[in-house]
Amino acid sequence: MSTEKSDVAAGNGLLGRRIFLKAGVAGGATLLTAQAAGVEREQWMKFPGGPMSENGAPSAYEAHVKRIGVASQPGTTGTGVSRTPLQHLNGLITPSRLHFERHHSGIPDIDPDAHRLVIHGMVDRPLSFSLEALARYPMVSRIQFLECSGNSGGSIAPEPAQVSVGNMHGLVAASEWGGVPLSVLLEEAGVKRGAKWIIADGADAAIMSRSVPLDKIMDDAIVALYQNGERLRPGNGYPMRLFLPGWEGNACVKWLRTIKVMSEPAMTKDETSKYSDLNEEGIAQLFTFPMGVKSLITSPSHGLSLGPAGIYQLSGIAWSGSGKIKRVEVSADGGSSWADAALDEHVLPKCLTRFRSAWNWDGGPAVIMSRATDEAGNVQPTRTAVLNGRANGAFYHYNGIQAWAVSDAGEVSNVYA
Amino acid sequence: MSTEKSDVAAGNGLLGRRIFLKAGVAGGATLLTAQAAGVEREQWMKFPGGPMSENGAPSAYEAHVKRIGVASQPGTTGTGVSRTPLQHLNGLITPSRLHFERHHSGIPDIDPDAHRLVIHGMVDRPLSFSLEALARYPMVSRIQFLECSGNSGGSIAPEPAQVSVGNMHGLVAASEWGGVPLSVLLEEAGVKRGAKWIIADGADAAIMSRSVPLDKIMDDAIVALYQNGERLRPGNGYPMRLFLPGWEGNACVKWLRTIKVMSEPAMTKDETSKYSDLNEEGIAQLFTFPMGVKSLITSPSHGLSLGPAGIYQLSGIAWSGSGKIKRVEVSADGGSSWADAALDEHVLPKCLTRFRSAWNWDGGPAVIMSRATDEAGNVQPTRTAVLNGRANGAFYHYNGIQAWAVSDAGEVSNVYA
Repeated sequence: MSTEKSDVAAGNGLLGRRIFLKAGVAGGATLLTAQAAGVEREQWMKFPGGPMSENGAPSAYEAHVKRIGVASQPGTTGTGVSRTPLQHLNGLITPSRLHFERHHSGIPDIDPDAHRLVIHGMVDRPLSFSLEALARYPMVSRIQFLECSGNSGGSIAPEPAQVSVGNMHGLVAASEWGGVPLSVLLEEAGVKRGAKWIIADGADAAIMSRSVPLDKIMDDAIVALYQNGERLRPGNGYPMRLFLPGWEGNACVKWLRTIKVMSEPAMTKDETSKYSDLNEEGIAQLFTFPMGVKSLITSPSHGLSLGPAGIYQLSGIAWSGSGKIKRVEVSADGGSSWADAALDEHVLPKCLTRFRSAWNWDGGPAVIMSRATDEAGNVQPTRTAVLNGRANGAFYHYNGIQAWAVSDAGEVSNVYA
Repeated sequence: MSTEKSDVAAGNGLLGRRIFLKAGVAGGATLLTAQAAGVEREQWMKFPGGPMSENGAPSAYEAHVKRIGVASQPGTTGTGVSRTPLQHLNGLITPSRLHFERHHSGIPDIDPDAHRLVIHGMVDRPLSFSLEALARYPMVSRIQFLECSGNSGGSIAPEPAQVSVGNMHGLVAASEWGGVPLSVLLEEAGVKRGAKWIIADGADAAIMSRSVPLDKIMDDAIVALYQNGERLRPGNGYPMRLFLPGWEGNACVKWLRTIKVMSEPAMTKDETSKYSDLNEEGIAQLFTFPMGVKSLITSPSHGLSLGPAGIYQLSGIAWSGSGKIKRVEVSADGGSSWADAALDEHVLPKCLTRFRSAWNWDGGPAVIMSRATDEAGNVQPTRTAVLNGRANGAFYHYNGIQAWAVSDAGEVSNVYA
C-alpha cells in the first residue's frame, strides 16, 4: 500500500520499473473478513450457461469497444477512415475487427478465385498468379505495425482537440501479416537491368496506385494473404495486399492487382495530389515512406478519468519504422523529468511495443507524456520540432510527443506541452 | 521452375531450407504475353465499394472458416467443445473468434462490474478485487499457446479417424494474453508459511475447480484480462481467467472467481473424475500439467488435396510447454529420412511456431510427417511410444507424431505410420 523514497524515478510521483516487482503498491483491493471470504454464488452460477458457437464474439458488456471516428467524404460511403479504439486495447496485437480502415473508393467485393496478381513491366517473363498458385510459394509471417501516414494529423491544429486517443491517433494497428516475399515472385519474373521502382495498383474502383523503390520490395515486402492467422479481411485488402514493414499504410496497396517494374516512379495521383509532405516553402517532399518513432499513453487518456489519488498504471504503445523500440520514457511533470517505462516481453522490430509505468498520483493537476527511442537512435520529437519547417496544414507523418493533462478531479484532457 | 540435386535434403523430394531463398521453384504462375499484361478491369472495379464499419468481419467467401466439431454432451448445449479449424489458418496467432472452446456447464453471462476475484485461505489478508482495482496493478502480456489436455485424444483409436486436422487436433490455439501476475496479488494478500497449492474456482455453474502448485503460480501465472488486445471473450473466461503458460487448458480456470491458498491439493471433482491420466495398471497419474512437445503438418492435411505433381509448401505448427521450439523436422517418406523445416521469424517460448518446407512431390504415394524438438531437448515421440505404458482408453496428453498419406490422386488421409 505504500511506496518508499527509493521507488521514485522522476518528478510528480513517477515510480521506477522495479516497482512492478513489488507487491502491495496499488492498493485497489478490498480487505475481506474471514466470513466474507466464503462468497455467495452469483446469479449466473445458478443455471447452465450459453452454448459453444462457430464464430465467437465479444461480451455484450464490451459493445462500446468498436472502431470509432467513421467518417466518409461527402457523397460517398466508402471513401474515408475508421479508427482503432486504442483507449480500450491493451497489449500489442490489434483484433482484426478493430483494425483501422482507410479506403479511397470503398471496399471492393472481390471473388478470390477470379482475382489475379500480375507482374509485368521491366521483367523477362510477365506472370500471373492465382491464390492457388501463390499457396505453393515459400511464405513468411511477422507481427508488425501498419500506420496511415495521416495518423495523428489532427495534432497540427492550433488548439488541442478534445477527442479520445483513438480518434486522434487510431490510424495505427499491429497484426501478424503472412504471405509470400515479393522478391521471390520478382526473381521468378526476372527483373531487367535498369529497373529501380515498382508501381503497385489496387483492384478498387479508385485503382489506388503507388510507386515503391525496388530496394524495399526486394528487402522485406510481402504479398500478404493472412492477417492474424486467417485470410485478410475485405477492409484490409482481401484477398491480397502489398505489405511494406515500417512504411506508410497507403503504399501497402490493398486488393493488390498489378506490380509493374519500372526505371522511375510513376508519379501517380495518389502520390502527387496527396500523400506528399509540403515544406515551409510549399515544396512537396515526395516519397517519405518510413514512419517515424512514436509513442502514446493510451491509459489514462482523454475521456478516461482517475478515481481517488493513489497508484495508477500508465500504459501505452510505442513503435518505429526503423526497427525495434529501445526505450520509452514517461513524465508526470510536463516533461521536466523523465523515468524509463517497463516494456512488455515481446519487443519486435517494426511492431507496436506495450509500455507501462507506475504513477503515484497525488491528486493534484499533472501533465503526463511519453517519449520513445528506437534502436537506430531516433528520439520522438516534440510537437514544436515536428511542425518546424513544415508548410501550414502539412499533417502527414506527425509523430510529436502527446501530452495529457490530469485535473485535480481526475479528468484527462488533450494539451500541447 | 527446376530444382537441383543440391537442393534435396531428404528422401522422396524434400528440399532444404535454403530453397526458400531461391526464386522460381514453385512454378505455379502463368506466363503472360505482353498484351495480356494489360489486364481488363474486373466487375468489382467499375463502381465504388462498400462502406467502413464499426466491427470488421471476414469476407463472405471465407464463411467456411469457422470453429468445427461443435459437440455437446447429451441433454446440454454448453457442455462440450468446439475446435479451431487449423487447416485454414496460417501463421501463429489464432483469431479470437476461432479459438477453441471447452466448457463444463456452458458460458456464464457475467456482469463485469459485479464480478470479484477473491483471494483467501492461507493468507494474512483475504482480499477482493474488482476489475477496476485490478487495472491499477502492474500488467504483462505475452503471446502463448493454450491447449486442452484432451487435444488429439482421438489418435489413440485403433484405426486412424478420417477427419480434418482441426477436428482431430484443434483444441490448441495461440493468443496474446495480458493481465496481472498472480504473484503480485498473492504477495499483497501475504502467503502464510506452509502454503504449497492454490485452488482456483470458476464462476460457471459447474464451478470448475483445479489445484495448482504455488510454485507455478508465483513463477509465471497471470490473471488474464485481455486476449489479442481486447477483453477476453465470454467463451474464454470473460471477464478474467487464470492463465498458466505451457500448462493444460483446464487448469487455466475460466471466469476465475476465487483463489484459495492451501497446504495440499483439494482433489476436486475436476482433477479426480477426469483430467488425470491412467497408466497401464489403471493407476491415476494426478497433476500432469505441462503440455508435451508437439507438431502437426496443417497443410496439406486430411480433406485438402494436391493438384499436379510439382513443388508444394508443407506448413504446420509446433509447440511445447517447456519453452521454445528448437527444431522441426519433416519427412516425406514415412519417417525413413528427415529434413529440417524453416521456422517463421517469431519463435516465442510456450507459443505456436509456424514451420514450412518445400516438397517436390513426384505425383506418387507418399507419407508426410513432422517431428518437433524443444529447447529443453524433448523430442516429439511416435504414436507407439506415447501409448506404451498407458491404460487402454487413456487419451490425455497425446503428442505423438501425426502422419498423412498422400495418394497418387493427391488425396490426403490420416494414417498411423
